[in-house]
Order: sequence, then C-alpha cells, then structure tokens
Amino acid sequence: MSDVPHTWFDTCVHALSDPAHQRVWSVIVSLFGDLAQAPGAQLSGSALSRIIMPMGIKPEAIRVALHRLRKDGWLESARSGRTSVHYLTEFGRDQSARVSPRIYDRTPRAPQDWHLLIADDASGMATLEDLLLSTDYLSLGRTLAMGSGDLPPNCDDLLAFQVSARTVPDWARTRVCPPDLSDAYRALLLALDTCAAQDPAGHAPSPGQVATLRTLIVHRWRRVVLRHPDLPPEFYPDGWVGPDCRDRVFDLLDALPHPDLVLLEDC
Amino acid sequence: MSDVPHTWFDTCVHALSDPAHQRVWSVIVSLFGDLAQAPGAQLSGSALSRIIMPMGIKPEAIRVALHRLRKDGWLESARSGRTSVHYLTEFGRDQSARVSPRIYDRTPRAPQDWHLLIADDASGMATLEDLLLSTDYLSLGRTLAMGSGDLPPNCDDLLAFQVSARTVPDWARTRVCPPDLSDAYRALLLALDTCAAQDPAGHAPSPGQVATLRTLIVHRWRRVVLRHPDLPPEFYPDGWVGPDCRDRVFDLLDALPHPDLVLLEDC
Repeated sequence: MSDVPHTWFDTCVHALSDPAHQRVWSVIVSLFGDLAQAPGAQLSGSALSRIIMPMGIKPEAIRVALHRLRKDGWLESARSGRTSVHYLTEFGRDQSARVSPRIYDRTPRAPQDWHLLIADDASGMATLEDLLLSTDYLSLGRTLAMGSGDLPPNCDDLLAFQVSARTVPDWARTRVCPPDLSDAYRALLLALDTCAAQDPAGHAPSPGQVATLRTLIVHRWRRVVLRHPDLPPEFYPDGWVGPDCRDRVFDLLDALPHPDLVLLEDC
Repeated sequence: MSDVPHTWFDTCVHALSDPAHQRVWSVIVSLFGDLAQAPGAQLSGSALSRIIMPMGIKPEAIRVALHRLRKDGWLESARSGRTSVHYLTEFGRDQSARVSPRIYDRTPRAPQDWHLLIADDASGMATLEDLLLSTDYLSLGRTLAMGSGDLPPNCDDLLAFQVSARTVPDWARTRVCPPDLSDAYRALLLALDTCAAQDPAGHAPSPGQVATLRTLIVHRWRRVVLRHPDLPPEFYPDGWVGPDCRDRVFDLLDALPHPDLVLLEDC
C-alpha cells in the first residue's frame, strides 16, 4: 500500500487501518471470527495473504502471527497438497463465539439490573480485583465495582446493592469511558465515513477485497466495543459517538456481505 | 442516692442512671423535651431540683447546667416572685421538636427509598463530609454515604445511585451499628427490665417521681435511638435488641404518663 491511496479500495483500507494498534495476530483473530468461525471452516495460507497483505502487512509478519496463534492454541494448520490450510481450534472457536454476540449486536439494550459491590478490607479488595480481572465489572473507585445480572458467587465479604443511577457526574463518566476510548470511537467514525463515501459496494469488489474490508471494520469495531459493557445511557460522556459508529459499522457490513470461502480460494 | 438502693424508686433510678454519660445539661434537655416542650410550658427551679436531685445530681451542678443552657440559647429563665422559672426558647423548642418524632415513634418503619452517594475527588469528599456532619447520612466507607429520601442539593460532584441492599456483610453492619452502640442498647434493655420488675406504676408514684423516671428513660433512649437512622432490617447486627428496647421504653412511659406541670410545682 502506497502512502497516498489511488483507488477506492486503497482509500478505504488506508482509512480503516490503524497502524499504531494493528497487531497481526489480533487482525487474524478478527478475520477468522468474521469469516471462518463455523466448525469445519478453513482458509488457505494464500487466501489469508490475499486478504491481509493489502493492509500493508508483510508475509513474514503473517507467518510469525500464525505461529504465535498456533502456539497459543487458537489456530491449527494442516497441509493440503502444496499449500497449508488454517482453521480455528475448539478453544479459538469458543473464544470467538463468546464475544461475537456483543460484536454483532445491532441493537444492544443495556441490562436493567445493575448492582454495586463494595469492599472494605483486604479480603474484600482481593475479591473485587478478581472480579474486575475476570468479568464484565466496571471499576467506579478503589473499593467499588458495578456489574449486571446475578451477584457473583463467593463475594460474601462485599456489601452488595441493587442500584439504578440517579446522578452521574463527569468523573464517573470519564472513569467508565475514558477519553482515549471516546477518541478511538471518534476516529473510527471518521474512518467509516471515509470508507462509506467511497461506496465500496458500488465498485463490484472482489471476494478478497470484501474480506479485507470486513476484517478491518470488524477488527476496529471489536477493539472499541469490547472495552466497555453496554451501559445505561446516563453513563456515556457528552459527545459519545458509540451508537453512530455502530450504525455505520452495520451499514458497511451489510453492503459487503460475507464472501463464500470457496470464492476466497479462487483468484 | 445511696450506693445500695432500698426502695422501688431508688432501685429504678439506680438502674436507669448512667453516671458515665450523665451530663446534667443533656439530662435537662431530655427533661424539657419530655415534660415541658409546649409553648408556654415552664418549670420552677425547685420543681427542677425535685426531679433531678434524686438522680444523684447536686444543686450546684444543676445551676451550672442551667447557666450553660441559657448561654447556648436553649433555655430562658425569669423571676416569678421568690423563685425562678425556666422554659425552652424558640430555638430550644425547635431543636426538641426536630428529634421528638424519632424519639417517640413506637413503630418506626425504615424508609424504602435509600440512595448511595459516592465521592471521587477532593471536592466530592468535602461535599460528603458536610452531609455526614449535618444530616442523617451513614458512612459506609471513606468515599461512601447512604441516606434516604430525596437527593440533597448541591451534590453534583457525587455519583448517586438509588439502592436496595442485596448482601450486607458483618463489616457493614458493624460500621452502621458499632459494638459500643449495640452494647448501649443491651445495657439499656437490662436497666428497663430492672425498672419494670419493680412495677413503678403499682407504687402510686408522686408526680415528681414519675417525672424523674420519665426523664431518665427518655434520656437513655434518646442517647441510643438518635445515634442511627431507622435502617432496613438487614443492616442490624446479630443480637440487635433495638426493637425490644423500644417496646420496654413505651411500656414504661405508658405506665408512667406525663404528670401535670402544676402538680410538679406542688409538693
């Protein structure tokens, strides 16, 4: 990819790429999650390269990332004639399936049943830290976390309240949605608008081009939407563009429907 | 009062007195609040002495306390012939009237609408401290207070949740009702039982004796019941005797009805 994009496709790829945060293994996770999450779905090494290389990622970087993903148990690879094929392991598929509902939810509704957990002593603080590390709890202070649904087990040392928000000051919005997350949403909105302005669907994109663009869109979207739970509206800071971003993401994904995996292998 | 009480009255007074915490000015506040809170109600110095001296309080201590209460704006005194008369100021009556509903509530119901206020920064901490000093808020931690009813004004720097308790661990019960308060309730229950066992109403007590006993009962009761708001039941520690205490207080006060102020002046 040259620095100055010349075609509609280059313009879209350039807008949607996020070189500062583009870890190749993570892009591949987004790619398999979007295109080849089903059991039995697989992609050849050459199809993968055709999808990923337009992002400015070199073959060597792809090889390194595939190696890492195999080592971490996400992917398996096999030889098929002269080429290799890659597919998600059961672990990789589970990980992917666990987050897909939130990534692909077009009309999320924030849970209605929130609770607040309050720690007082060292034992309570440890319980709280475990919850914050392992689940969807939001920290609202050194000794406070908010979550939805049932109370977690083994939290008898925490004071628990069923809660609904009455007043949410700026500091609490900032804690829940920090400025860099707000910035990331705004940057993504701009990228999606740039891409949409090129009308990619109107250019009869190849299956590989569709896969490249979908992967970039899903990758960027995944990296913001999974950073926060769906919150009651009063928790989002002023100027929050989350819903606009979501609308643009699904407009573009709808205009660029999943290509058939078989077509990705032909070229 | 001798160390070993000999009569039913001495036994009751001895049981109900709390020498460690018996500030004379505070006893007089309880006395006026119970017997002479109405506008126009007044008591002579000699009636006051007849009510208070059986508690083992010396005339000089009464004079000092009356002086302090005048200086603090609670009481006024006037000459009436050869004796002085004392009565609550408007300020004193307001102060008394403000707490009477809670002191004399036989069947308090804990508010249903609790909220939690959460501070984050120095400005929020200052707001929270002001609330804890001036109102019925309960501290649940360095940055947390719980209260009922409407949100207070000027607390925009606090995160506010409508709450209902789900799990209340021991540390939270202890914070709301500390062990010395639980102990004070238990000691009062014992004192009330000792007094009730003497059947004071069955001894045809004089108006002055009734006034002495009522003052002691109300004074002790006031000093525990006003130390905590009426809380949802799950906040009280195991073995909490508050409701038993309240029952005994009103059984005794019912058996010892308010004496006519005129009768307190005759003797």
